[in-house]
Formats: sequence, structure tokens, C-alpha cells
Amino acid sequence: MAQLQRIAIAPSQIQGSMIILGKEQQHYLARVLRLREGHRFIAMDGGGKWWLAQLQGEQAQVLETLTVETELPLAITLMVSLPKGSGFDEIVRYCTELGVSCIAPLLSDRTLLNPSSQKLERWRRIATEAAEQSERSFVPTILEPVAFSAAITATKATHRYICEARGNYQHLNNVVKSNTSEVVIATGPEGGWTEKEMEQAIANGFQPVSLGRRILRAVTAPIVALTLISANSEVYSL
Amino acid sequence: MAQLQRIAIAPSQIQGSMIILGKEQQHYLARVLRLREGHRFIAMDGGGKWWLAQLQGEQAQVLETLTVETELPLAITLMVSLPKGSGFDEIVRYCTELGVSCIAPLLSDRTLLNPSSQKLERWRRIATEAAEQSERSFVPTILEPVAFSAAITATKATHRYICEARGNYQHLNNVVKSNTSEVVIATGPEGGWTEKEMEQAIANGFQPVSLGRRILRAVTAPIVALTLISANSEVYSL
Repeated sequence: MAQLQRIAIAPSQIQGSMIILGKEQQHYLARVLRLREGHRFIAMDGGGKWWLAQLQGEQAQVLETLTVETELPLAITLMVSLPKGSGFDEIVRYCTELGVSCIAPLLSDRTLLNPSSQKLERWRRIATEAAEQSERSFVPTILEPVAFSAAITATKATHRYICEARGNYQHLNNVVKSNTSEVVIATGPEGGWTEKEMEQAIANGFQPVSLGRRILRAVTAPIVALTLISANSEVYSL
Repeated sequence: MAQLQRIAIAPSQIQGSMIILGKEQQHYLARVLRLREGHRFIAMDGGGKWWLAQLQGEQAQVLETLTVETELPLAITLMVSLPKGSGFDEIVRYCTELGVSCIAPLLSDRTLLNPSSQKLERWRRIATEAAEQSERSFVPTILEPVAFSAAITATKATHRYICEARGNYQHLNNVVKSNTSEVVIATGPEGGWTEKEMEQAIANGFQPVSLGRRILRAVTAPIVALTLISANSEVYSL
């Protein structure tokens, strides 16, 4: 199974056998996903069309049109504060089963853990196993841990949510139903986000949402968020 | 925190300070929940009203009207095939956080485990801890393990679903949206239900549903099912 990174494109970006990449996409492929000239990735239009593509300067060559049955029609990036202990193993396993495209481990104000590079290898191995078990076509990308503020300001996805247990926010299930090709969702550490983090996220276009009236563990929140986003996208794509 | 069992009633069953119990409710309280004369339980009307009640023959005395903010407006019973290893610990912990009312461990054709009574005590301890952590008002009931066919034929809830990974069934998220006070949902073991079990469930009024296009582990399926039912009930009760 290929460990290919995935980006969302607009159908108008396909011209003949080439994909014309925008400035932000070039930046994302090079800086965040660390792809170089000649590397391959998946392009998806959010409407169920998938292409295998190869990076060529500011464009990408379409190598193949893909048939995908077990993948979601949208790319979900999960930004998740590193929980204590082995909680991140569970998050990677469950969220891979649930169809996540990319997981970005965050170092937030209340994060206790600063993981070693062996941890990253371990998470990628878990993602590979879980993708195979759940019969997915692709293995999600696990990025290197990154500071909260860097992650929050880097994303340009049109739909950005941040989950917050306290406070009277709209339920995620109420706001995810629009058709979209790309969603970013952030979930916090034990003890929640700091006030400063919430303010920074909101200032960067993140909509605060609730996952229900009970207090969920840091491990449970991302699983619930992924379940709701993926179920709504599959229901509406049928 | 009280470890009280919970049943759904119709508002018309409340007469003065008494609850008039139907034959099936009496049976359920006595045989399934093992309540005796003078025992206390929770009655809920599915519209957000809750009462603390005490069993008195074929009726129950209302002791107190309860204020409940973190509980779901409906009672969810999870019937779940015992997975191998310590998977059931995880199911109890996650599903308690997500608002389950009652968990019935099933011995199905492909169940490998026949747990000891220490296991049952352990699960109840986990449920109590998880209910406290998630700030719930009540601890869910963990029933003793029961044979699949006994459980499937005993339930009289109006909304009964059985999750099946293979086959082209409607997504659970598409069918749970109606207002209801009681839902029963069954999830299978590793390797899935046998054909005979599916037939028996359908013959007993269970609607087969899908949880999405990927193959979920036996531990993941109940968490996803609980997430979808609880999110839909909370969204529609706001």
C-alpha cells in the first residue's frame, strides 16, 4: 500500500494531463509534506475523483486516474495536542480506521510530551497497519510534531474547526454538513486549550465547536470528531 | 454517584406521584435489571424529563424530579459481542463517555471469550470511573454476559439496529434522526456476525445498518455507533 500524501484541488486546476498548482499548494507540498521534484502524491477534487500525480516544478503530471471505494470524499486533517502516555497510539489507530488523511501532532501550552523520532516512526507504523486492517486505499500522513501557533497559522483550508469542551458552542454535527473537499479539525490536550490558544485559533478562522455535553478524554475527542465528519461526508456522497 | 438503572416511560404513565408500569417494564426491571421491591431507578420520558423512582409492586413511587444536564435525552442500550483480549475495557470506557445507558455483553457464534465474574466487576468499575471523568449524572448498567439469541429476542425497544460491515446497508447516520426515547444497537465480534445471527436479528425487528465504507475493528464499531446516535440526539434536543 502506497504511503502517498494527499491534497485537495479544484477541478479547474486540471489542464490536459497536468495539474496547475497554486502558490499555497506548492508551499504545502514542499514545506509541510516535504515533497521534492519527481515525488508522487494524490490529488482529489472532493467530488470523488482521484489522481496519482508527480511533482514537476510548479505543476504536477497526472500519472493515473484512481478508483477509490473505501476513502472519504474529502481530506480531513486532524490537528491534535499530544496526550500523555500512549494515548497518541490510540488516536492514530482509531482515526486511521475512520478515514483521516493527515494527522498533525501539536505541541500546545498544556502538552506534557515532546516525543522522540522513534515515536514518529511508531505512529507511522500504526497508521500503516490500521489502514490495511480497515481496507483503506491510502495510509494517512503523520506529520512531525509542530508548535500550536505554527500549525494554526499555516492552514488555509476553508473549513477549520477547533473543539472545546467548556463553553456553549454549536455541536460539530450541526456545522459539518456542507459539501467541502477539505476540513481541518483541532482537538486539545488534557485540561483543554488555554484562553490564549482559543483566541489565536479563532483569529485564524477556526470555528469553535462542541462535541456534546459530556467531558471527553483527550483521546476520545478526535475519534468523535472524525466519526462525525466522516459519517456526514459519506452520507451526503451516497 | 448513584449506580441507578434507567428505563424509558411515556409521560402518560405518570399519575400523581406514581408511575404505572407496563407488563414489559415490570418484566425488564425484575428479570433483566434484577430490581426488587423498594429498589430505586431512574425513569425518563425521552423529552428531557427525569425522575428518581422507587419500585412498589406494579408501580413506582416518584421520589424526586431530577435535573440532568450531561445525560442524553434517550436511553441507548449497546449489545456488543465480546471482543478478544481487553477490548471490552475500551468499549466500556469510551461508550460510557459517549452517554450509553446500558451495555449488554453478548456471547455470539464467533465470540471467543467467556468472561469470569471478576471481569464483570472490572467493567463496572471502569464504567463508574468513566462516568465520573466525563461528568455524567449516572453510571451505565453493565449486564451479565448473555447469549446472542436471548438478548435479540428479549428487547422490545422501538428502534433496533444491528451493524454489519459487509453488505450494502443504509448508513446509521441516515436512520437515527427520528426522535425516540430508546434505541438498541448491536455490534459484532471480530469476523462479523454469522449469517444465521443476521437472519435472527432481522426476524426480531433489527434494522441492519452500515457504519461507513471502511472495515472497523470490533472495538471501534460500538464507539462510532454511540457517537452517531448521541450526536444526533443532542443536536435535535437543543
